[in-house]
Amino acid sequence: MAQSPTAEDDQRFLDLAIEQASMSWDEGGVPIGAVLVHQGRVLAAGHNQRVQKGSAILHAETDTIERAGRLSAGVYRESVLYTTLSPCLMCAGTALLYGIPRVVVGENRSFEMSEALLRERGVSVDVLDDARCRALMERMIVERPEIWSEDIGVESSELDR
Amino acid sequence: MAQSPTAEDDQRFLDLAIEQASMSWDEGGVPIGAVLVHQGRVLAAGHNQRVQKGSAILHAETDTIERAGRLSAGVYRESVLYTTLSPCLMCAGTALLYGIPRVVVGENRSFEMSEALLRERGVSVDVLDDARCRALMERMIVERPEIWSEDIGVESSELDR
Repeated sequence: MAQSPTAEDDQRFLDLAIEQASMSWDEGGVPIGAVLVHQGRVLAAGHNQRVQKGSAILHAETDTIERAGRLSAGVYRESVLYTTLSPCLMCAGTALLYGIPRVVVGENRSFEMSEALLRERGVSVDVLDDARCRALMERMIVERPEIWSEDIGVESSELDR
Repeated sequence: MAQSPTAEDDQRFLDLAIEQASMSWDEGGVPIGAVLVHQGRVLAAGHNQRVQKGSAILHAETDTIERAGRLSAGVYRESVLYTTLSPCLMCAGTALLYGIPRVVVGENRSFEMSEALLRERGVSVDVLDDARCRALMERMIVERPEIWSEDIGVESSELDR
């Protein structure tokens, strides 16, 4: 029987998500990363693929869930999703579809769209307010605003900056 | 300026989604199809890819949005998403992320997870209650229950049958 993750475990898994985000930034993409963890074991790590794969649906969280492959319902229900940025409604909806009970968020100051919905439906959402996650998104919003706005379905003129 | 789709247009686009669903069934997959239409022009058609691509996130709607490629916010906001089955929360969340204003649903008797959320957030949801869509899902639930339950994040013992 696996223990609940400690604060150190959360930090360690978030670090992996941040590595994914940094790698995506270096590739010219959106610097958001995620990790799916089942009872202390990493099932998959991924990052936003808008630029790299020309994808409209591979956000960090969905890319990670895709990389984890086909899983039975029971596995998702014992897993934790770590993400460097608070999830959009597509990614929150994916967590809700599969009954992922806990989402750990690097930061939610740059973007927040779904935390109320997740909590309302019983998902535990923990926000770590990590400075590295914030710095990645601050740079993104300043240096690549057209890609960022496209990623969240707004026109760049509508971005909060 | 494009006209609003007529009931005949809706039927014609739903027919394309049903073709996708039938093709997916014939390939051994989940028989759900979708079409994304911008001002009367089909941007993409797709279907569930759980079996064909081993995918956990390519439902009919997300496969279709992925096939449509990277689009600016304004295009989604003038588009209609047709789907043979009422969307799950992942697919509804994708429509909400991109501000798709209308979803046309083939049927919602086999599965319904997100219509209240969509309507609450201003999306127009029209359910056509199409007998062909129902027949596809009835066959799926009887003949491939393990794949179907996996696709909606439940154990097969938890399926309503």
